[in-house]
Amino acid sequence: MPLTTTARLMDGTALAAEVLATAARDTTALTEQTGVAPCLATVLVGDDPGSATYVKMKQNRCAKAGIRSRHVALPATVSTAEVVDAVGRLSADPEVHGILVQHPAPPAVDERAVFEAIDPRKDVDGVTLHSYAAMSFGLEGFASCTPGGIMRLLDAYEVELAGRQAVVVGRSPILGKPVGMLLLGRDATVTYCHSRTRDLPEITRTADVLVAAVGRPELLRGGWIKPGAVVIDAGYNPGNVGDVEFDSAARRASLITPVPGGVGPMTIAVLLEQTVLAATRQLGVALASAAAGSQSTD
Amino acid sequence: MPLTTTARLMDGTALAAEVLATAARDTTALTEQTGVAPCLATVLVGDDPGSATYVKMKQNRCAKAGIRSRHVALPATVSTAEVVDAVGRLSADPEVHGILVQHPAPPAVDERAVFEAIDPRKDVDGVTLHSYAAMSFGLEGFASCTPGGIMRLLDAYEVELAGRQAVVVGRSPILGKPVGMLLLGRDATVTYCHSRTRDLPEITRTADVLVAAVGRPELLRGGWIKPGAVVIDAGYNPGNVGDVEFDSAARRASLITPVPGGVGPMTIAVLLEQTVLAATRQLGVALASAAAGSQSTD
Repeated sequence: MPLTTTARLMDGTALAAEVLATAARDTTALTEQTGVAPCLATVLVGDDPGSATYVKMKQNRCAKAGIRSRHVALPATVSTAEVVDAVGRLSADPEVHGILVQHPAPPAVDERAVFEAIDPRKDVDGVTLHSYAAMSFGLEGFASCTPGGIMRLLDAYEVELAGRQAVVVGRSPILGKPVGMLLLGRDATVTYCHSRTRDLPEITRTADVLVAAVGRPELLRGGWIKPGAVVIDAGYNPGNVGDVEFDSAARRASLITPVPGGVGPMTIAVLLEQTVLAATRQLGVALASAAAGSQSTD
Repeated sequence: MPLTTTARLMDGTALAAEVLATAARDTTALTEQTGVAPCLATVLVGDDPGSATYVKMKQNRCAKAGIRSRHVALPATVSTAEVVDAVGRLSADPEVHGILVQHPAPPAVDERAVFEAIDPRKDVDGVTLHSYAAMSFGLEGFASCTPGGIMRLLDAYEVELAGRQAVVVGRSPILGKPVGMLLLGRDATVTYCHSRTRDLPEITRTADVLVAAVGRPELLRGGWIKPGAVVIDAGYNPGNVGDVEFDSAARRASLITPVPGGVGPMTIAVLLEQTVLAATRQLGVALASAAAGSQSTD
């Protein structure tokens, strides 16, 4: 039986390349105009090899775009106070425009306390309470990068959101909750599902836009998807498997993100874009992309 | 035809009286233990008679409970900077434990900037970005008072929330959005509806728990309600009319809040309760009610 894929793929690799190219152009312009290159500080606590790889990847992308990076590595044995202190120094340092604390921190470190030491103006990874609330209310601030990347993908493929049913499966502070708030800010009717949701397939079948953000391999099956839906798979599980059973889902969806090559590449692209935006704001320069959104509350 | 009301009423007046009695007892205990009575600062900008009445009512309730109040009245012609300055002084004043800025401020005043001048530890009305995000993530902080009051009502009537469908109609920063986050934190599957939602009745009919928080008189009809649902009417429109058509809804619901006498009285009760809690924390005393919640993110 031949595989009849009907969905169009949402190409995150291509879109991320565009966003990165713009970030690189903006970086050049900013550096020429001010004599200062944007600078992203990365903070890595402990020696998890996966986390080290992610940080390295982000630094490499920065270098390619002309963004400087500054790295702070702390041993796994460090106290919360020491990490807070290090992040606080970066927040106060005028040469640093953006701060990324690689998640997850070792269990003994209070990650929330560390995040809150990031000045919201430098929170280019969108992890502070301030950023989350600003995102929720449509105020100026930085989106969590993966949710921000998902919105970029939806916009690039001209997905209509206003008045449509969006279902978000997952409710983590850096993915499920913020992406739901961003969709709500764009006038979608938003449902949050999670591990305690009863009859999940019945709810996902109502979704015009379905976001899987739960981190459970192939949890969502093709039969759970409304024909013609837009499917965003933000899961990234071992073996390059998403949260959606791709083959069966692609036969029902109109648009779908592949894993890898869908949401994943957008995360770093948004991180770099927001770093340039942060530098632009801190250096007092006006670029077109610096406008804040506004939201309906009715 | 006789009116056959099947729903039990959720008596907010009675529950609020209990919460206020506890707040008064805690205030007495705290005052005896520390020599300091809790103090709520109220800030009123402009001369809207409705707002003045609300503030007066809050002050009277404080006085009855033994909570001191301090009032700051500013003319409608004041600048945002002047209000921010006044609120900043209250934030810095160790004699003030809670701050309430009466909503709405005159249009020329940037209400968000004023709210952000409130120290989150004194944000007993739950209006800062910090409070909203903390509420969303189940961290220690103060709930917006009406959402907090709604949760109190649901708990008092032992409404099961985990795994149940909750629908919130409305998405304002101080009502719809936070109440949805509190319900999500209690493991309900939460849907946000609003003015752009298509086929609202179809969605409200899926709700085990329906929260009307939209400010449109009798928008939600009895036929829109799932038989046996719990209906929370947070609307308060001219003529003592809620957002729900009460008579027809009461014939379908299992539990329903009346208007007035349902959600309304809970708002002030939670405000006072949170003022006492804020004072307790700031004075370094441990009371049983000061525990923070924790949330699932899966």
